[in-house]
Amino acid sequence: MDYQGILNIIEKQLEYTKTKGNVANYIPELAKVNPNHLGMFLKCTNGDEFYFGDYQVNFSIQSISKVYTLALAKEIIGDDLWKRVGVEPSGNPFNSLTQLESENGIPRNPFINAGSIVIADCLLSTLENPKADLLRFVRKIADDNQIEYDNKVAFSEKKHGYRNVALINYMKSLDNIDNDPEDVLDFYYDQCSLSMNCKQLAKSFILFANEGKLLNNQDRVFNTQSVKRINAIMQTCGFYDEAGEFSYRVGLPGKSGVGGGIVALHPKHYSVAVWSPPLNKKGNSELGMKALEELTSLTGLSIF
Amino acid sequence: MDYQGILNIIEKQLEYTKTKGNVANYIPELAKVNPNHLGMFLKCTNGDEFYFGDYQVNFSIQSISKVYTLALAKEIIGDDLWKRVGVEPSGNPFNSLTQLESENGIPRNPFINAGSIVIADCLLSTLENPKADLLRFVRKIADDNQIEYDNKVAFSEKKHGYRNVALINYMKSLDNIDNDPEDVLDFYYDQCSLSMNCKQLAKSFILFANEGKLLNNQDRVFNTQSVKRINAIMQTCGFYDEAGEFSYRVGLPGKSGVGGGIVALHPKHYSVAVWSPPLNKKGNSELGMKALEELTSLTGLSIF
Amino acid sequence: MDYQGILNIIEKQLEYTKTKGNVANYIPELAKVNPNHLGMFLKCTNGDEFYFGDYQVNFSIQSISKVYTLALAKEIIGDDLWKRVGVEPSGNPFNSLTQLESENGIPRNPFINAGSIVIADCLLSTLENPKADLLRFVRKIADDNQIEYDNKVAFSEKKHGYRNVALINYMKSLDNIDNDPEDVLDFYYDQCSLSMNCKQLAKSFILFANEGKLLNNQDRVFNTQSVKRINAIMQTCGFYDEAGEFSYRVGLPGKSGVGGGIVALHPKHYSVAVWSPPLNKKGNSELGMKALEELTSLTGLSIF
Amino acid sequence: MDYQGILNIIEKQLEYTKTKGNVANYIPELAKVNPNHLGMFLKCTNGDEFYFGDYQVNFSIQSISKVYTLALAKEIIGDDLWKRVGVEPSGNPFNSLTQLESENGIPRNPFINAGSIVIADCLLSTLENPKADLLRFVRKIADDNQIEYDNKVAFSEKKHGYRNVALINYMKSLDNIDNDPEDVLDFYYDQCSLSMNCKQLAKSFILFANEGKLLNNQDRVFNTQSVKRINAIMQTCGFYDEAGEFSYRVGLPGKSGVGGGIVALHPKHYSVAVWSPPLNKKGNSELGMKALEELTSLTGLSIF
Repeated sequence: MDYQGILNIIEKQLEYTKTKGNVANYIPELAKVNPNHLGMFLKCTNGDEFYFGDYQVNFSIQSISKVYTLALAKEIIGDDLWKRVGVEPSGNPFNSLTQLESENGIPRNPFINAGSIVIADCLLSTLENPKADLLRFVRKIADDNQIEYDNKVAFSEKKHGYRNVALINYMKSLDNIDNDPEDVLDFYYDQCSLSMNCKQLAKSFILFANEGKLLNNQDRVFNTQSVKRINAIMQTCGFYDEAGEFSYRVGLPGKSGVGGGIVALHPKHYSVAVWSPPLNKKGNSELGMKALEELTSLTGLSIF
Repeated sequence: MDYQGILNIIEKQLEYTKTKGNVANYIPELAKVNPNHLGMFLKCTNGDEFYFGDYQVNFSIQSISKVYTLALAKEIIGDDLWKRVGVEPSGNPFNSLTQLESENGIPRNPFINAGSIVIADCLLSTLENPKADLLRFVRKIADDNQIEYDNKVAFSEKKHGYRNVALINYMKSLDNIDNDPEDVLDFYYDQCSLSMNCKQLAKSFILFANEGKLLNNQDRVFNTQSVKRINAIMQTCGFYDEAGEFSYRVGLPGKSGVGGGIVALHPKHYSVAVWSPPLNKKGNSELGMKALEELTSLTGLSIF
Repeated sequence: MDYQGILNIIEKQLEYTKTKGNVANYIPELAKVNPNHLGMFLKCTNGDEFYFGDYQVNFSIQSISKVYTLALAKEIIGDDLWKRVGVEPSGNPFNSLTQLESENGIPRNPFINAGSIVIADCLLSTLENPKADLLRFVRKIADDNQIEYDNKVAFSEKKHGYRNVALINYMKSLDNIDNDPEDVLDFYYDQCSLSMNCKQLAKSFILFANEGKLLNNQDRVFNTQSVKRINAIMQTCGFYDEAGEFSYRVGLPGKSGVGGGIVALHPKHYSVAVWSPPLNKKGNSELGMKALEELTSLTGLSIF
Repeated sequence: MDYQGILNIIEKQLEYTKTKGNVANYIPELAKVNPNHLGMFLKCTNGDEFYFGDYQVNFSIQSISKVYTLALAKEIIGDDLWKRVGVEPSGNPFNSLTQLESENGIPRNPFINAGSIVIADCLLSTLENPKADLLRFVRKIADDNQIEYDNKVAFSEKKHGYRNVALINYMKSLDNIDNDPEDVLDFYYDQCSLSMNCKQLAKSFILFANEGKLLNNQDRVFNTQSVKRINAIMQTCGFYDEAGEFSYRVGLPGKSGVGGGIVALHPKHYSVAVWSPPLNKKGNSELGMKALEELTSLTGLSIF
């Protein structure tokens, strides 16, 4: 498969595509980003790498981090995790309170904000140094010690995160949060503030395309079963209330973030990260969606 | 009208009525109350007073305080108040987040928690010393300087008030709260913690039966129009999602609190307060509802 | 009280009021009505009558008929009626399916469409000749044998009534409809098609201001208790999701219809009907609401 | 892959599994089925076939038929189809009216009842003889001329289908149904009444595992892109509000029916049908879900 040729085509197409989306502006720190950034990085399970554009420019991965914390929590807690969070697509915006009320404080899946906050609460209860441990884990699976949190972003998000305060306190009132809400949110904002580039993201997600094993030494990080299930959740829940649309148009498991990044993977074949800050109405990168749709169209390959 | 004779009949009937309700237990401080308390006090616009039982025993008035703050805020702010809170019955439990989400952070009426929190925010922005000013106002209209806040109750409520933290932060995220959420809630918990007895309650509410004038000196506190409108809101929204039931069975404007108190009034005739701690499923005093139903049945008089 | 003087003032004010509302257009037959009609008729319990404008022009009373059928059904069935329909305000538009689904097919009150359809089902099961019996009843309480159904309106409504077919079949699936859905709707459309004028409406509703007795001979039609309770339901549920607004601004029990009519009453004092076809966004006559607000402002009298 | 050995293991495991589910009883005709039936049939893209139990016993395929009609409608109408129905998972039970109301009559996806009724409406507008044409199509792709409608089931469903009458009339009121509601439902009940066995189902669905081509002659029925997209919709929406659970546990696109049948497929590898009438709370075959979970566990293969 001539992946580099395909990426070149995608790059050209996107250059001529006008986007009507706007950069995320609910956090001042995110609103500052240059909307013209565009980068893509594809990593194959055989080690090959293909890329274009700003694939080495860091951005705020935001909700993409929810996959890391879910994978960690699933590994530590096992299936008991599902007593506190579901695996069903939500059919509601990512920060909806309505679903939470109608289902007694059990978030519908680990990728809506409420669900990922529950996961953060789990990690806070089980990890010794949650913030340091998470960073070490991400650095390890990305094979890159340069990765850091962006404290400015975390601080900015905390300062404006009234909706998340609402979500966590509501769940606390229904006994689905163990720790102090403020501590949990602090960790949650740290996690979302991880600053990475397309290359680091694709490298870290190759694990999920490689049955749970690191690529460099084939060390197993997660068991095959766990990885399949996390991929399944990415497939059905990875794009807020646009999960069906992404599944329909792209046909790969993946996860987006409001920083404009999207990461996706084709089990046994590759992982891929793309970044373009302007978002569509559902909060997903408009050009990122298009790039991945082109990728599976041009390769003629998807999981379906 | 032989009100005392009627109150005697009600007292006897209630003594033989077994209640299946439980005392409010969501705040430890409220759960300690003796469920067997029962008292009633009726104050006529001509000054006459009728009563039985524990009408001089203090209890936590809780949501009944929402009438005081609404009346104050309406007086200060006027009809602009209705830009931030509606006057429609809610059709949802008093602490629902769903309604708030579907209506963009505008609480449906000033008697659900979210609505009263908005009112508290208004008072915090306009009163010089909100806590002291409110107490002075209540003491004045009740003509009783013994009335105090119960700091233990306020503290207990604050400690367990995760749901209210959720509500206020959600509204803050939608720009319907001006002040710091914690400051607003502190004042809100103070307001709810007012410790009063049936006599003080009935005396303070006679104002709403007397077209806005104090009874002792006929000094005008609120204009006639305002009082009618607050009475109308009590009628349609005073009993959470049981407002229709109360209107149907009792036929008077009124307001209940989870401390087991209910206050109601017959414009131009009387105000009445009743207290019995066990609550029905909707959060209203079971025997209190019954007492007031008997009152309008036996007098043959209601606003309808 | 100089009611005629007050009505004259109202008439003048309304003439200078531009309305932004539109005539109901969901049924072609209703859309044909001249939007400039305006009439008002007030009937006192002492027999006095006051009026202006088109008070003798017939129009389609539509949902106002729900009060007649409710009163009849309550008389026949008694409190068992409340097993099949509630008395709580709905907080949703008049034809919402959502409320019905969340409450298992029990309509929230007898004045939303679903509730009135249940009432029609009850009458169909208990009256010998429902259509004829209802007409006879309305003629009797209005003391006017000219009142008729408008078959054209009924037919037009039936032809476009997909939403009502949805409501009744949904309730049928949940066992809250006994008769054949089509038969029930036929009766329901007949009831709504009653063609009356302000005078006839006010005369028929004086019953509810006169404790259940006819005015001409003081014959009792309903017992006092029943009348009070129907008045209470009008107060809390008579104006769809604008019931609170009407209660707040007008302060009288009443019922509106999409034909542009509103009827209201002041217990022991008067009943009043007003008609102006253009509707506000909530489906209530815009000028009708204004007229009644002026009435209680200028008289200084309401139930509150 | 020793598929037959794996099927033998599954057969044994299921024999020892007690199910707590009940056979669908909302239609009398379906309630008559023997709950002890159990059969499974797996068809590989290389033509191999594996099976056990009652794989040749016919049952009512019910909602599985929604895949056939969706595929046909997508072929005829193309992407314009998505103006009338979405591709997002619903997060609500299959026959919910609430979702429909909040999204203005556009069903969330083609596999909830409302969505499939819209598809039926499309086919009624475009096929010459919808009932005969659909049967011919199913017989062709299953390569089996024995397949028939079960008129008794269709009649039984029509007689008790009040909820579907509600759904279609609601959509008609919002202009998302073109034909007469009764005609559309007649066709819809025919489609659901298709009587097939596991062998016929698996044979007909091999098309979706074989990129849209028939297996016997490699004739193309659907283009590759269409098939991928229908598979994507099966993945995210095929199991009502248990789609995420199925995706998580099984990891294959599939579709269930209340007759107790489930069909699933592994693109490029196989299609598989399983049948056991007792349903879990979500309306999916309990043992069928288990059988497919075992299948992907034991083969170690899923799309993830």
